[in-house]
Amino acid sequence: MIKPPYLLFIGDATDKLSIKMAQGAVDWSPKQCIGELSVAGCTVTTSLPQTSIVQAAELGAKSFVLGFANSGGVLDTKWHGVIKQALAQGLDIVSGLHEKLTDIEEIAELADSLGRQLIDIRHPQQSFKTGTGEKRKGKRLLTVGTDCSVGKMYTSLALEKEMQAQQFDADFRATGQCGILIKGEGVAIDCVISDFISGATELLSPDNNTAHWDIIEGQGSLSHPAFSGVSLGLLHGSQPDAIVICHALNRSHMRGLPKSQLPSIADTISLNLQAAKLTNPNAYVAGIAVNTSSVTIEEGQKICLAIANEFDLACADPLRDGVSSIVKSLKAWSPKAATDNKNPVITDMEKSA
Amino acid sequence: MIKPPYLLFIGDATDKLSIKMAQGAVDWSPKQCIGELSVAGCTVTTSLPQTSIVQAAELGAKSFVLGFANSGGVLDTKWHGVIKQALAQGLDIVSGLHEKLTDIEEIAELADSLGRQLIDIRHPQQSFKTGTGEKRKGKRLLTVGTDCSVGKMYTSLALEKEMQAQQFDADFRATGQCGILIKGEGVAIDCVISDFISGATELLSPDNNTAHWDIIEGQGSLSHPAFSGVSLGLLHGSQPDAIVICHALNRSHMRGLPKSQLPSIADTISLNLQAAKLTNPNAYVAGIAVNTSSVTIEEGQKICLAIANEFDLACADPLRDGVSSIVKSLKAWSPKAATDNKNPVITDMEKSA
Repeated sequence: MIKPPYLLFIGDATDKLSIKMAQGAVDWSPKQCIGELSVAGCTVTTSLPQTSIVQAAELGAKSFVLGFANSGGVLDTKWHGVIKQALAQGLDIVSGLHEKLTDIEEIAELADSLGRQLIDIRHPQQSFKTGTGEKRKGKRLLTVGTDCSVGKMYTSLALEKEMQAQQFDADFRATGQCGILIKGEGVAIDCVISDFISGATELLSPDNNTAHWDIIEGQGSLSHPAFSGVSLGLLHGSQPDAIVICHALNRSHMRGLPKSQLPSIADTISLNLQAAKLTNPNAYVAGIAVNTSSVTIEEGQKICLAIANEFDLACADPLRDGVSSIVKSLKAWSPKAATDNKNPVITDMEKSA
Repeated sequence: MIKPPYLLFIGDATDKLSIKMAQGAVDWSPKQCIGELSVAGCTVTTSLPQTSIVQAAELGAKSFVLGFANSGGVLDTKWHGVIKQALAQGLDIVSGLHEKLTDIEEIAELADSLGRQLIDIRHPQQSFKTGTGEKRKGKRLLTVGTDCSVGKMYTSLALEKEMQAQQFDADFRATGQCGILIKGEGVAIDCVISDFISGATELLSPDNNTAHWDIIEGQGSLSHPAFSGVSLGLLHGSQPDAIVICHALNRSHMRGLPKSQLPSIADTISLNLQAAKLTNPNAYVAGIAVNTSSVTIEEGQKICLAIANEFDLACADPLRDGVSSIVKSLKAWSPKAATDNKNPVITDMEKSA
């Protein structure tokens, strides 16, 4: 459990992508973010005011967040000083790097002597059990993707926001580093021992009130050769009632793998529905979220309309158009509709299953 | 890399199932096993002669294997003495327990001072990369299951033995503890961080000669709610040319999950072929291995014949009938046959994909 509010440390970053964890926190939980701290050479910003550690502590900051990524995931020793300063000012330290803060002796010792937490988001501390597949109470929605990095986290957060605005009892459940920072808790599911993928997901989304919705952040893609195992374990552990397909326009290949072809939206629907039915026979697709940022707003809307018509499903760009149409299809849905085979694309798959 | 030969320590075990790791080594790599050591209270045996640590060392033993499982996976402190004795006699220690030998201070210090290895099979020491899905040279066969514990390891080992006898250039690739002990190396795939399931599998089965076969030990089942993620990552990382379906007769539910139904053999073929084609479009099913131990030999053979006819595939109980019919279908196969859609059961699935 990460204590808010945060001071976001972005070091000497020069690439907007490398501070996406900090930016995500600013975009989705601005109230939790007190300010930003960068050093000479930094050319990017989350838009929050530059705030020193002392100022942040005075303003009530509780956590110092290493809000940058670097290649290799190792913490440069040049940052040890600023981390120790934050510890001395009473802040916990939060890191999404591969290297564990708790493995760095001088930092671990200081944190220990001061009674501060070192939170390595990539190294879950919980102990997990293997999954059971047993039905839990409450409703669940899972975002799934045609590929990695197509907007599953943003779509999930947009759904939470819209559903809460419409008086749904809904909570975002984080499964990645950035989501965990935004929510303040969660499980970095791709960092869990593989025996426990679905068990960890079951723990993340426990029994709840009948009308409560968990909006579970998806990871990877069933069609991504590197991460499909994570995606399937997450799907089976989530046992989603509703699935939202996430897609980004104009990709030429699977992320990071130039030789891997992208699946179609139709295949992504089929694959996910077929697999989801193992732990939730009533699973249905509630809509399609498209990242249309590579085209104009008008073109994006035309494309979403065409996709909506092709699949008879709500389709929108969550950032440009919002997700109210998708939320509306949640309301409209009932178990009977799923039995009536509402989604025409799954007909063949159903027959062969 | 585990150094043979082994002295198998089975403690005070009273349950044949709890020494299956030791038994597997005796059954499949008898030359690597020098003897067995048990203590007062033990009521089971692998059939190897009782051998003291001193005798084993004199006979050339290189590794002392904790060949028993216990609930909780923690090493009882009562075994620390015998482990230290084995270290003092020049043996490495091999453990498949959850608790790491290297975390037990008195054992770790002694091993270090004597220059011995502590090998915790469940805690891979390699560093892995994420998968690439890129085609490797050589041929690969993966065993997959309708469920866990249906005989995937035994089938894989029987295939290796039969293929080597028929002059195939073939190697068993171990993905579970028992297989690793038998082979002396491998990766406990369900103990790998989930981000690296397929990457670790790619490393386990690297580029090889064009005619070489890796026989990769499968894990779990795509239809098992707890372990499907491991199975899918392993399938995509293996990019098998040939898949052998493993099935056990007369199960009433998925292993460990009384509420989970078993998939049919037809569904298991469909699911695995469909998924396999992501990283190997030419993947085909080479046969079906059935554990018929719950019925008579005659009944088992009738059932295998019926399954063979139903799917037009080789079908046999590897332990009772051998796997020569399955190996024969490997020889018969060519990429063209796969394109001709040799397996009738996949027709619907193919159409909808």
